[in-house]
Amino acid sequence: MKPVVVRNIKRVDPNAIGTFEALGVSTVHEALGRSGLMKPYLRPVWAGAQIAGPAVTILAQPGDNWMIHVAVEQSQKGDIVVLGCTADNTDGMFGELLATSLKARGVKGLIIDAGCRDVKALHEMGFPVWSRAISAKGTVKATLGAVNVPVVCAGVNVEPGDAVVADDDGVVVVPKKLAVEVAQKAQKRFDDEDGKRKQLAAGVLGLDMYKMREPLEKAGLRYADNPEDV
Amino acid sequence: MKPVVVRNIKRVDPNAIGTFEALGVSTVHEALGRSGLMKPYLRPVWAGAQIAGPAVTILAQPGDNWMIHVAVEQSQKGDIVVLGCTADNTDGMFGELLATSLKARGVKGLIIDAGCRDVKALHEMGFPVWSRAISAKGTVKATLGAVNVPVVCAGVNVEPGDAVVADDDGVVVVPKKLAVEVAQKAQKRFDDEDGKRKQLAAGVLGLDMYKMREPLEKAGLRYADNPEDV
Amino acid sequence: MKPVVVRNIKRVDPNAIGTFEALGVSTVHEALGRSGLMKPYLRPVWAGAQIAGPAVTILAQPGDNWMIHVAVEQSQKGDIVVLGCTADNTDGMFGELLATSLKARGVKGLIIDAGCRDVKALHEMGFPVWSRAISAKGTVKATLGAVNVPVVCAGVNVEPGDAVVADDDGVVVVPKKLAVEVAQKAQKRFDDEDGKRKQLAAGVLGLDMYKMREPLEKAGLRYADNPEDV
Amino acid sequence: MKPVVVRNIKRVDPNAIGTFEALGVSTVHEALGRSGLMKPYLRPVWAGAQIAGPAVTILAQPGDNWMIHVAVEQSQKGDIVVLGCTADNTDGMFGELLATSLKARGVKGLIIDAGCRDVKALHEMGFPVWSRAISAKGTVKATLGAVNVPVVCAGVNVEPGDAVVADDDGVVVVPKKLAVEVAQKAQKRFDDEDGKRKQLAAGVLGLDMYKMREPLEKAGLRYADNPEDV
Amino acid sequence: MKPVVVRNIKRVDPNAIGTFEALGVSTVHEALGRSGLMKPYLRPVWAGAQIAGPAVTILAQPGDNWMIHVAVEQSQKGDIVVLGCTADNTDGMFGELLATSLKARGVKGLIIDAGCRDVKALHEMGFPVWSRAISAKGTVKATLGAVNVPVVCAGVNVEPGDAVVADDDGVVVVPKKLAVEVAQKAQKRFDDEDGKRKQLAAGVLGLDMYKMREPLEKAGLRYADNPEDV
Amino acid sequence: MKPVVVRNIKRVDPNAIGTFEALGVSTVHEALGRSGLMKPYLRPVWAGAQIAGPAVTILAQPGDNWMIHVAVEQSQKGDIVVLGCTADNTDGMFGELLATSLKARGVKGLIIDAGCRDVKALHEMGFPVWSRAISAKGTVKATLGAVNVPVVCAGVNVEPGDAVVADDDGVVVVPKKLAVEVAQKAQKRFDDEDGKRKQLAAGVLGLDMYKMREPLEKAGLRYADNPEDV
Repeated sequence: MKPVVVRNIKRVDPNAIGTFEALGVSTVHEALGRSGLMKPYLRPVWAGAQIAGPAVTILAQPGDNWMIHVAVEQSQKGDIVVLGCTADNTDGMFGELLATSLKARGVKGLIIDAGCRDVKALHEMGFPVWSRAISAKGTVKATLGAVNVPVVCAGVNVEPGDAVVADDDGVVVVPKKLAVEVAQKAQKRFDDEDGKRKQLAAGVLGLDMYKMREPLEKAGLRYADNPEDV
Repeated sequence: MKPVVVRNIKRVDPNAIGTFEALGVSTVHEALGRSGLMKPYLRPVWAGAQIAGPAVTILAQPGDNWMIHVAVEQSQKGDIVVLGCTADNTDGMFGELLATSLKARGVKGLIIDAGCRDVKALHEMGFPVWSRAISAKGTVKATLGAVNVPVVCAGVNVEPGDAVVADDDGVVVVPKKLAVEVAQKAQKRFDDEDGKRKQLAAGVLGLDMYKMREPLEKAGLRYADNPEDV
Repeated sequence: MKPVVVRNIKRVDPNAIGTFEALGVSTVHEALGRSGLMKPYLRPVWAGAQIAGPAVTILAQPGDNWMIHVAVEQSQKGDIVVLGCTADNTDGMFGELLATSLKARGVKGLIIDAGCRDVKALHEMGFPVWSRAISAKGTVKATLGAVNVPVVCAGVNVEPGDAVVADDDGVVVVPKKLAVEVAQKAQKRFDDEDGKRKQLAAGVLGLDMYKMREPLEKAGLRYADNPEDV
Repeated sequence: MKPVVVRNIKRVDPNAIGTFEALGVSTVHEALGRSGLMKPYLRPVWAGAQIAGPAVTILAQPGDNWMIHVAVEQSQKGDIVVLGCTADNTDGMFGELLATSLKARGVKGLIIDAGCRDVKALHEMGFPVWSRAISAKGTVKATLGAVNVPVVCAGVNVEPGDAVVADDDGVVVVPKKLAVEVAQKAQKRFDDEDGKRKQLAAGVLGLDMYKMREPLEKAGLRYADNPEDV
Repeated sequence: MKPVVVRNIKRVDPNAIGTFEALGVSTVHEALGRSGLMKPYLRPVWAGAQIAGPAVTILAQPGDNWMIHVAVEQSQKGDIVVLGCTADNTDGMFGELLATSLKARGVKGLIIDAGCRDVKALHEMGFPVWSRAISAKGTVKATLGAVNVPVVCAGVNVEPGDAVVADDDGVVVVPKKLAVEVAQKAQKRFDDEDGKRKQLAAGVLGLDMYKMREPLEKAGLRYADNPEDV
Repeated sequence: MKPVVVRNIKRVDPNAIGTFEALGVSTVHEALGRSGLMKPYLRPVWAGAQIAGPAVTILAQPGDNWMIHVAVEQSQKGDIVVLGCTADNTDGMFGELLATSLKARGVKGLIIDAGCRDVKALHEMGFPVWSRAISAKGTVKATLGAVNVPVVCAGVNVEPGDAVVADDDGVVVVPKKLAVEVAQKAQKRFDDEDGKRKQLAAGVLGLDMYKMREPLEKAGLRYADNPEDV
């Protein structure tokens, strides 16, 4: 790891971001071919937010939040800050003061593969955070990391400027170069779902709507009238 | 495992279900002799629901939700669907569309030893789910499991038609044949608790109300006036 | 372990308690030199409470809540009960009836390195609990532990009478003899934060406010204009 | 749970046991249709043993090994003792003295969904144990459980007399009534594997041997000569 | 936490140490009244060692091994170094070079509530370590901790000079002032076990040897001849 | 994720591989600037192997090992196969037959962020595997993944052809383009260590050898003669 800060990054197409923010994580993740999803241990510290934006990335050391201060300066309106850590760590690297600073720059939220604190204040100020833990554990500012280099966060590789989408279901990352194509697929998927929802609500079975009966039978599924017949 | 769907199952006595739903998990679990409780990693995706009903069971493969679609057809008004998995898995096997389908049939809720997604939509539509994870991870429909066979879900063996009770404290399963007896014991336990609650609220000590002082002394408990006397 | 109950404990200075309750966990933990924090697996069973008080301690056996009944008698108005367990355990050792009893004595809350149940009732009655799990699993009253001896709870050693502070960020313990000094430091830290918050909200960078640019450069941080320059 | 000991259980066919012990866990698990496998957190306390036998089952309380003493009397030559617990627990319920007792009766080994101690002595005396933890934590003898009732152990429902197979890969349970059929399938699977092994060792590709190329192509797999072509 | 090194500590009685090292963890833990056992996630990085000695304690920060270097100077022949961490951490704080240094001073081993590396070299040089993880993750030397202050390690409070006992079953800590008394009890327990072992090996049942039949019956245990009778 | 297999990958410099294999994980990880280390939950299924080689990468679905069969054809003498999974999974995706196939092609070993089975056979045939679990759980061949695309494995992003180094301390990945430089640094680090080892073995303190006394004092470390002086 080289201790470096990259100043200029190419950010994902803003129209794709708009679509992603409207549709949310599950739809985007499906449209991406069921990949790019961060591990489910990452949870929102308060529920209800749904955001999307280009990633400003941080590689940090366990128990050390020095690089977040550095990253503030590199972030701009609409960004989402994403922090990966060189080792598993739950210390409370982020709290109200840093959130104040990010909010002042127009940053939409934080994804942190470590701990977060001041969760009540974060909720009150409406700054959303997805973290692996809530912890008051204070951190030091002693060892360098890097800003705007590729980082692995909660199992996903994130390049600076990639699209990050986060809501109550989790966090998904769409590589910059795929974003426009994925946004189109996601929108189409969303448009198709409404018809399905109505049919299902009316009692139509998925077995029929998705035409599953034949493949199930081919795969060998058998029906028995009673437990004794199994 | 045989890939089979059992059509007709014997469902637990509906009166017992009524009692269980009114009294909730902790009381029923005690009345059952402190057994039948699913592991506490199973949590409601939204808080506040309290339900009871006969189990429609699913045995699924990790990352594959094909059998849920099959199970929808086997479920009826008042049922609770219970899904066990052949291996630990947190993928989001269940979401809004399947919930729409189950709700259309009158199913009360889902217990799933895997992941769940669309949690905001599930809350808005009032469909309760207890899961081991919240995850947007999409699943395939490729490998058979079984429906209405005995399954182990979160550490408890569930037979189709057994009574399932779920609330904010967790999920408990009462075997069909014990349900009526357990419902009576649970009701009695509940009736007794009110008097105890009033006494305790008035400042009576449990030590006295439960007559614990003598057994504690017999077991060897000693009182010391000060730390130095230990 | 000797099965003993210590009747008279020296409680931490009440003025320090008042300061701690007003300032909350993160500030107190920093003022204590970033130590004394319980592990983050300990979470509030309902969010929003912020309390501080002297510890009444319990050492319990897994699956056995006998000692909580004993501890009720030793607790007094303003106390916080802290339970450590001789082995990792998530059983629901504590619920509504015990909370009723503790509330009748004026106890402010419970910190339990084990499970808790009746969480909806606890919320309704306004009795806050921090636990490692929510579980309806019933417990027995068969084996002795101890009350008001030093216990390790969620990774922190707690002496009877030490100050316990708990809020949505977690739980911190301040040794009795350090409490007054720590309260002063915490108050100072809090008073200083307001100015910082205003500057950051106005867009001043932490890099400048904390004068980090020079130490970062000395440590070897390098800025690159573009990814290719790394 | 009723505190009961069942004296007479029907044990699985001994010929099937012989086959299972010779073939080991992975082969038997496949022959059973990929089910019946205990969770992989269950590990041998020493490596190298491979056993099979009918299950004598124990349902125990966390931190309490009273029922193991009861189960010794119910076990006979060739049995494997299987212990499930009413709640997750890692206490060292089993050690050298109990192993001496079981060995004196000809019991082949122990599967315990809790902790085990005296692991060096167990290795020296050649008594194999599969446990979820190694822990010296002592346990009490205070609360009843049951012997020879169905128990869930590490995620699998075990009926008394079912076939248990254990080796370095884990533990699998074959229901009594399926044992003969599964033993035949397992033997066939094993016999077929030798030919495959020789082909693969000679450099034949599984893609060809299993005729996977066509289904892969149908499923949509594409080959690209270079990364840039993706 | 104050960044301090205490030079002179009172070490536990050496005769007790001799007894503890001969008898091992399980026996000592029982003699201490089933307390003082570190959590079972702490495992030997190589099996077979059995040691006892007075504790030299370290409080370290996550990802920082500076204090181990400081502690080397404070340790002497026969000591066991015990490291607690201010937050959960698995970084490889300790390896071959530090082991060489400790071995040169006659230190018997290390108990570390963090990670350890160079495990093959540690085995070859015969220096035993009990750790929570094996990890090559390098650490920094940037933030102070403390040496020879009380620390919590793997759930147990350790005072400098307390007796530490470690073997394949885990690690137990005996407070200095109890050591002589516990050594006597442990020796007695060990002496008694030999007779029991012989009886059990001869087929005497624990039910009879420990006279459990009557208390089991009183507690309500019932025997059923067949599953149908339950 | 696109279901694609890339046939031609650029492999890391073979001289660097030779150095990495000789020096092992800890040294290489330090030379890389303390990054690139896979999470410590990845453990060797048998101890003692130390290998290095270019990565052939697999992205697989949970419970599905189809892509391993595909990857065999893409691997060549000296390679190390690295498998990442789209969701956490411990199923036994790999066993003796696949190992036979890989060995026939000269592959050195496997790194798999999922389960492994047939561990005894793997040991006997000398094929090393680092996995997150040992599990006999069988898998299906139903859903596509990809081969020789970038994958995240145990927290590290791996590009096809990157250098993988694995031993008893874990697994580290060196990006292709940094390999030669890192190999030189690693060799230098190794050469320097021998002198340090000799000094430490002779009793020289790290405090003096590394000249730590002054920076420790500057950082505020204080020495106290006795506990009372703290």
